Amino acid sequence: MKLITAKDIAEAFHSKNLLQKGFEALQEDLGRWDEFEKTPRHAFYRSHGVFELMPCCDDKYYTYKYVNCHPDNPKQNKSSVVALGMLADIETGYPQMVCDMTILTAIRTAATSAIAAKYLANPKTKSVGFIGNGAQVEFQLLALSKYFNIETVKYFDVDPKAMEKFHQNCSKDYKEFIPCENAYETIQDVDIITTAINSKEKLELIKYDWIKNRKDLFINAMGGDCPGKTELDPEILKHSRIALEYYPQTRAEGEIQNLEFEPEYTELYELIQNKKPGRTDADNIIVFDSVGFALADYSIMRMVYENGLGHDIDLLPDMPDPKNLYKFIKPSL
Amino acid sequence: MKLITAKDIAEAFHSKNLLQKGFEALQEDLGRWDEFEKTPRHAFYRSHGVFELMPCCDDKYYTYKYVNCHPDNPKQNKSSVVALGMLADIETGYPQMVCDMTILTAIRTAATSAIAAKYLANPKTKSVGFIGNGAQVEFQLLALSKYFNIETVKYFDVDPKAMEKFHQNCSKDYKEFIPCENAYETIQDVDIITTAINSKEKLELIKYDWIKNRKDLFINAMGGDCPGKTELDPEILKHSRIALEYYPQTRAEGEIQNLEFEPEYTELYELIQNKKPGRTDADNIIVFDSVGFALADYSIMRMVYENGLGHDIDLLPDMPDPKNLYKFIKPSL
Repeated sequence: MKLITAKDIAEAFHSKNLLQKGFEALQEDLGRWDEFEKTPRHAFYRSHGVFELMPCCDDKYYTYKYVNCHPDNPKQNKSSVVALGMLADIETGYPQMVCDMTILTAIRTAATSAIAAKYLANPKTKSVGFIGNGAQVEFQLLALSKYFNIETVKYFDVDPKAMEKFHQNCSKDYKEFIPCENAYETIQDVDIITTAINSKEKLELIKYDWIKNRKDLFINAMGGDCPGKTELDPEILKHSRIALEYYPQTRAEGEIQNLEFEPEYTELYELIQNKKPGRTDADNIIVFDSVGFALADYSIMRMVYENGLGHDIDLLPDMPDPKNLYKFIKPSL
Repeated sequence: MKLITAKDIAEAFHSKNLLQKGFEALQEDLGRWDEFEKTPRHAFYRSHGVFELMPCCDDKYYTYKYVNCHPDNPKQNKSSVVALGMLADIETGYPQMVCDMTILTAIRTAATSAIAAKYLANPKTKSVGFIGNGAQVEFQLLALSKYFNIETVKYFDVDPKAMEKFHQNCSKDYKEFIPCENAYETIQDVDIITTAINSKEKLELIKYDWIKNRKDLFINAMGGDCPGKTELDPEILKHSRIALEYYPQTRAEGEIQNLEFEPEYTELYELIQNKKPGRTDADNIIVFDSVGFALADYSIMRMVYENGLGHDIDLLPDMPDPKNLYKFIKPSL
């Protein structure tokens, strides 16, 4: 059994090209969507934050991710989101790997956004705007930059330190790296807007009036991802094409939780399987209502496991006779 | 963050008296039942076996257990059931501990049975019969022996090697340790019957006719614990008082899944809180329809965590600035 720490993942991030491999693994797994057992995630909503379990399996592996979201954690210098994952062999149920999923969640979320953007954003995208510059933002920009020739980055966060951090981490790789005063300024003249802030409330970071005349706009709506937490003016959803990961989960957790009617939607795998078209001339605004789905966690765990990351540990009992568990604790017999 | 391996638990089993402490932790937690957030477990039923996630929390900790059950595993010299657990701080969501739960599951299951028996078995119990002598059986006997003066043990398993193993592990501590030819022989003249076999099918290991005239019988029905897997003649349930852990889960998974009507039942916590009586003179047969509940996993994880088992690991990213996850993978910035 392997233990893969955050440090193992950090060290392999560049040398093993984990972002690219994560993108490829996810694209491959979305292409065989029907082979997976899928379920909305299990969540406990508590006063300090949410606790989620996200299982998924096919005929080879069973995986789950544990992930929290505690918006006030940064006040005590902790991350809002940490995560860990487990991968087991489907034939025996034996755990094969326990791994940190904090960085891997950022990678798989960025890979998911990049796949959505690849099919649904203007292929000539040159500019992106980021509302919310937290732990995810650099990964998002890195992933989008693999598929678009991005020259201009606009960004805004209510926390100036988060903006400063984003600038320090990424500005040198782009022609224009423009700090903005507010959301309205951030979204002007960009081809892709990504929203991802931390507050657990129903916000309208972008008003429909601001964008109603836009052509070829792609909104990567990442932040609305649990009941009571949304970031878009619902009017935007009523006038946009909607893409999402897995309807039963997104209906409860995503931006579309605010709609009184069942919307039309495209699931991401339908794009990969050519069951639905990518962006067409008829599409003006497309919203990717991203909440994070267990299949993407499966893909990223499969990828790091199959790439041999981490080191061996003896977590489980090693029993010569599997029915003799008691002997394991009483070796004198 | 702590990693607690099976070896750590095995080493502490006697020296830290984990069975007794597990019993006390569970008894204490059942006494504050209303403080817990409870849910039936999440399960994927696959052709080779079942994959379960069992979360629970109160105002201090969030825990979950991953556990499988693959009945054919012993054919390839693997355990049918392995498990691992995680405990997180409720205020931040940060994982504080990952542990093997294979041994701990046996401990908590035995502790649960012992609590049920303490309230519901004949207090003068001197004899027990075990149908199914797999990995759990020694822990069950050990736990029952803490609360009853057991002199006679009868046992039967379709696998003679399992019987031989049980004999080797435990026979010297009891006056009579009697191998039986079948289930019928095993249940004669014993005060407590424990059923726990491995097959995933609807069996009738005990017929109602065999026991209908018994007084003061306690049936510890452990094995029926997922849809399609039961071990008792349903007639027994119709003529017994039924105790269980948590009705919404047991209704789907336990022996009572076979009943066409909603039965009367006592939840274990009601005994501890004196909301329902333990065994009374009116009770002839009492069945504890045990399926295994997440609160017992919580209790055992809390216990090993608070007893300081295991050793420190750095699984999660260590970030001076929690919003700067990207810096963790790019330390040159």
